[in-house]
Amino acid sequence: MIHNGELTVATAGRGFHDVTKDVARVVTASGARIGLATVWIHHTSASLIVCENADPAVRRDLEAFMARLVPDGDRLFTHTDEGDDDMPAHVRNVLTQTSIGIPIADGRLVLGTWQGLYLWEHRTSSHRRRLTVSVIGE
Amino acid sequence: MIHNGELTVATAGRGFHDVTKDVARVVTASGARIGLATVWIHHTSASLIVCENADPAVRRDLEAFMARLVPDGDRLFTHTDEGDDDMPAHVRNVLTQTSIGIPIADGRLVLGTWQGLYLWEHRTSSHRRRLTVSVIGE
Amino acid sequence: MIHNGELTVATAGRGFHDVTKDVARVVTASGARIGLATVWIHHTSASLIVCENADPAVRRDLEAFMARLVPDGDRLFTHTDEGDDDMPAHVRNVLTQTSIGIPIADGRLVLGTWQGLYLWEHRTSSHRRRLTVSVIGE
Repeated sequence: MIHNGELTVATAGRGFHDVTKDVARVVTASGARIGLATVWIHHTSASLIVCENADPAVRRDLEAFMARLVPDGDRLFTHTDEGDDDMPAHVRNVLTQTSIGIPIADGRLVLGTWQGLYLWEHRTSSHRRRLTVSVIGE
Repeated sequence: MIHNGELTVATAGRGFHDVTKDVARVVTASGARIGLATVWIHHTSASLIVCENADPAVRRDLEAFMARLVPDGDRLFTHTDEGDDDMPAHVRNVLTQTSIGIPIADGRLVLGTWQGLYLWEHRTSSHRRRLTVSVIGE
Repeated sequence: MIHNGELTVATAGRGFHDVTKDVARVVTASGARIGLATVWIHHTSASLIVCENADPAVRRDLEAFMARLVPDGDRLFTHTDEGDDDMPAHVRNVLTQTSIGIPIADGRLVLGTWQGLYLWEHRTSSHRRRLTVSVIGE
């Protein structure tokens, strides 16, 4: 059984959006008891990560680390058409994930207790982001 | 045909564990001749990588690089509940992989000659780590 | 339905190769209308990324960023058998992707408008690189 679901996320500039429940809903709708859910983000300046979901400080620290590692306005970058955060957004994407495959067991994503799936918006302005969830199961 | 297998790895603090053979055993048990094996780690402070498996110096150098890139005790970090290595472990996770999908052909993982699949423990203390291997095949 | 396709790419030293059309061709050959295409690279010194495909400056900036982050000849590295770019190639691999799973809908990869799939050669000399594309679909 193969089932695709579409999700959209309205972002408000740089930051994290927990999409775990939205992806879980697609799995439930598919009826799969066992299988694989692959999440894909249709963009090159917003990406996916799996992260600790208990303490919001973890995401704040992650953002602080990434902002230091890939500074906005770095003079190394020549692709600056859309501003100081344009090329850093592409680099952040490449250092994180465009697709993540999560096993399904007993009709649920096999996430650890503290694992959440997050969309990470890397642009400083707001965007409408699109995800596809592909469920293969039985 | 869909088959899930569970693996656990007892780590002894920061370091690498070659899980290639354990994952291959799940594929063999599934009976799949062709398909996909997706490995998932249930944690946000230990992760998965594919790495050169011949010279142990490669992993030592990787660890040295990561320790320099994401220093323990970095004053940038505010999430320090579990110590100096707490937040660095989460960052290392985000920069590596939570899930890896490996094609299966002729009943085997299609790994290159020098490719090994490793669990990378990022905490300095020992942990019991859990993996799920999802095999979809025929 | 499960179908594997093999691709080879001849690289001319460090740089990017757009393999989107080659992967799409395997999907078309499989006949899948819906499903998942997982791309696997058989190497630990060349990797996969999804990147903006409109402006070549994005890839040039990416290469410049990576060269600064993981400098060739860094004295931190002890695994230098094959030269100054040997260990940096392994590190670049670990920071990017070995496998990427792309959903299929209407017989096509569900790529965003500006998304391309690239093989990134990390060695400074030319190599023959091998990919496997695993299609699971119906």
